[in-house]
Amino acid sequence: MKRISILGSTGSIGTQALDVIADNSEKFTVAALSCARSVDLLCSQIEKFNPKAVCLDREEDAAFIAEKYKELEVYHGKEGLKAIASMEDCDIVLNSLMGMRGLEPTMAAIEAGKDIAFANKETLVVGGEIVMDAVKRKGVKLLPVDSEHSAIFQSLQGNENNDIKRIILTASGGPFRGYSLEQLENVTLEQALKHPNWSMGSKITIDSASMMNKGLEIIEAKWLFDIPVEKIQVVVHPQSILHSAVEYMDGSIIGQMGMPDMKVPIAYAFSYPDRLDLGSIGENLDFFSLKDGMTFYPADKNVFKTVELAYEACRKGGSYPVVLNGANEVLVDMFLNKRIRFIDIQNTLVKVMEEHEPVFGLDLEGVLEMDKRIRDEVRNMF
Amino acid sequence: MKRISILGSTGSIGTQALDVIADNSEKFTVAALSCARSVDLLCSQIEKFNPKAVCLDREEDAAFIAEKYKELEVYHGKEGLKAIASMEDCDIVLNSLMGMRGLEPTMAAIEAGKDIAFANKETLVVGGEIVMDAVKRKGVKLLPVDSEHSAIFQSLQGNENNDIKRIILTASGGPFRGYSLEQLENVTLEQALKHPNWSMGSKITIDSASMMNKGLEIIEAKWLFDIPVEKIQVVVHPQSILHSAVEYMDGSIIGQMGMPDMKVPIAYAFSYPDRLDLGSIGENLDFFSLKDGMTFYPADKNVFKTVELAYEACRKGGSYPVVLNGANEVLVDMFLNKRIRFIDIQNTLVKVMEEHEPVFGLDLEGVLEMDKRIRDEVRNMF
Repeated sequence: MKRISILGSTGSIGTQALDVIADNSEKFTVAALSCARSVDLLCSQIEKFNPKAVCLDREEDAAFIAEKYKELEVYHGKEGLKAIASMEDCDIVLNSLMGMRGLEPTMAAIEAGKDIAFANKETLVVGGEIVMDAVKRKGVKLLPVDSEHSAIFQSLQGNENNDIKRIILTASGGPFRGYSLEQLENVTLEQALKHPNWSMGSKITIDSASMMNKGLEIIEAKWLFDIPVEKIQVVVHPQSILHSAVEYMDGSIIGQMGMPDMKVPIAYAFSYPDRLDLGSIGENLDFFSLKDGMTFYPADKNVFKTVELAYEACRKGGSYPVVLNGANEVLVDMFLNKRIRFIDIQNTLVKVMEEHEPVFGLDLEGVLEMDKRIRDEVRNMF
Repeated sequence: MKRISILGSTGSIGTQALDVIADNSEKFTVAALSCARSVDLLCSQIEKFNPKAVCLDREEDAAFIAEKYKELEVYHGKEGLKAIASMEDCDIVLNSLMGMRGLEPTMAAIEAGKDIAFANKETLVVGGEIVMDAVKRKGVKLLPVDSEHSAIFQSLQGNENNDIKRIILTASGGPFRGYSLEQLENVTLEQALKHPNWSMGSKITIDSASMMNKGLEIIEAKWLFDIPVEKIQVVVHPQSILHSAVEYMDGSIIGQMGMPDMKVPIAYAFSYPDRLDLGSIGENLDFFSLKDGMTFYPADKNVFKTVELAYEACRKGGSYPVVLNGANEVLVDMFLNKRIRFIDIQNTLVKVMEEHEPVFGLDLEGVLEMDKRIRDEVRNMF
């Protein structure tokens, strides 16, 4: 019986993870749950899964829960998240937090020797070197949950000794695939929130629309698989059937395919190296129903600048990825609140990256400080 | 240094295998070679690769070679093939013979404890149970070289404990894909010999045109991967980029892709579980150059009857696969000699299968006898 803690249990990944756990209750049990402010949903999760501990953002919500469930350990805030990430009686921590605020709980979980099921790319974007050093030092597993990174991870199995020639990182292209720069100027929040293939949280959905999500994934893949970014090729594949692939030195490409369903990578991270019989969850891919087949295009760099920014941040290193991510988090939040236009996201990112004066060799504190500074700067730009 | 013997060294697979060996001479050396009658080509192979032994079909050719190369052990005929398949100072036997005459040398190699790189599907079609029993008993490896079976084998790596839901066996569909039964009546030998994607020997090229090749591959896959035929799905994929795939119980499909180049599966069989750096041999697949993308269709059962015949032969078992294969080998040979029409191949196979009175529990002798009987019967039909 594997005991699983979920950071971000009321979000899209968190709720699907709980579905997987519920359907495989002979294999998994819930150790702890956390959410920001979705108190009602958390209550129903507590009643269904009977965790030992929970954490909420706000002290008053925590007090309410503690009053309601007397047996439960209840935490709140950043320190609370670190506490449940590192608590005893837990084998795997699913980090499905949104944004780089997942960095500190991730470090706490690694230091406590937990395996991590990882769905929080911003953490690796800003703290890749720090996190991967800790992973190696503590000998824990970092099991990717993003569909692309899970696909790459699955495609690497049985190839421990084999050199990678190229990682093919697929992208749906999002709702604005094929748009011109002029068309991108006029898109609305509602349009940006409509992803063609995947149902996800709002931040990642906007990142998909701007293709910043693919940029972040390039950086995540670099760290997860210890590979130079030059070997990562972004391939726009509108059907989202090939979830990503690995080309080896012999020209052989191993890829993972399937219907777009996050439960597949979640379950694989939980049960690795075994797979679960997901029955109707893992919906069968019918190759004959793909009416346009599987098609592949390069990303349009002239329209979507974000992917190139991510390559550049990776190549330059130091504080560049921290700045790119921090600025993006603030900008997406402002766009979601209708304070800026969609095109302002990438225009501002280009400007911020051009003007940034880098710092190298940042430790955890340094990363957190740099992140705070860039957020303030970007907020002051509007 | 792995010592490799090649049965069928002057054929399409054999010559490509020697290219792989030549390009990786620090890893591989040639132990023995065999060919039917291509004496001149065999001489140049002897001079380049310096084998310890060779075998030819005819005694007079063997005498000529023995006279020319005094140091060489020279064999001939069926007994000669068995001798070089089982000789000492050899680690891997590549069986790239054409047809079920590969069965006896395969058994000899297995009994002598050799790993087999396997490109001779007819042997498994007729002797699957006998061969796989021997493989298990002797603990040798049977490493597939057919591009589809290599793709499946590659897709199984790292999934030793995971149940297979489905094998997706891809087929180019051959030169007559999309033809009606009427159109199939009038095709010529020259048309049948033009495969759209793969350059191969004439027997397998005709089998590809009739889709009998896919039928034989279904039976081969059943034995190689110990899977019921009901779990093998034939998917026509004209671009031959996805070489085959495996779907697991979680709905995840792992597949192997690449440019159509037999050197990739040959090299993988030789170096398994490691891959070789094939440099320019393993030509890079450019996803962006696939102008129609990757498309998938069901096989047209009303036009191509052979695939269904293979499923039926598998389901019924006993002597049915022996009869299907033996009849096909004779019919393809007659078609190659312009003695029958293309459509006569499948029409005769349907008739032979309908009329066959099966025998069960055949041993090696029984298989050889049944094969001889059906060949005589089919020859007498024209």
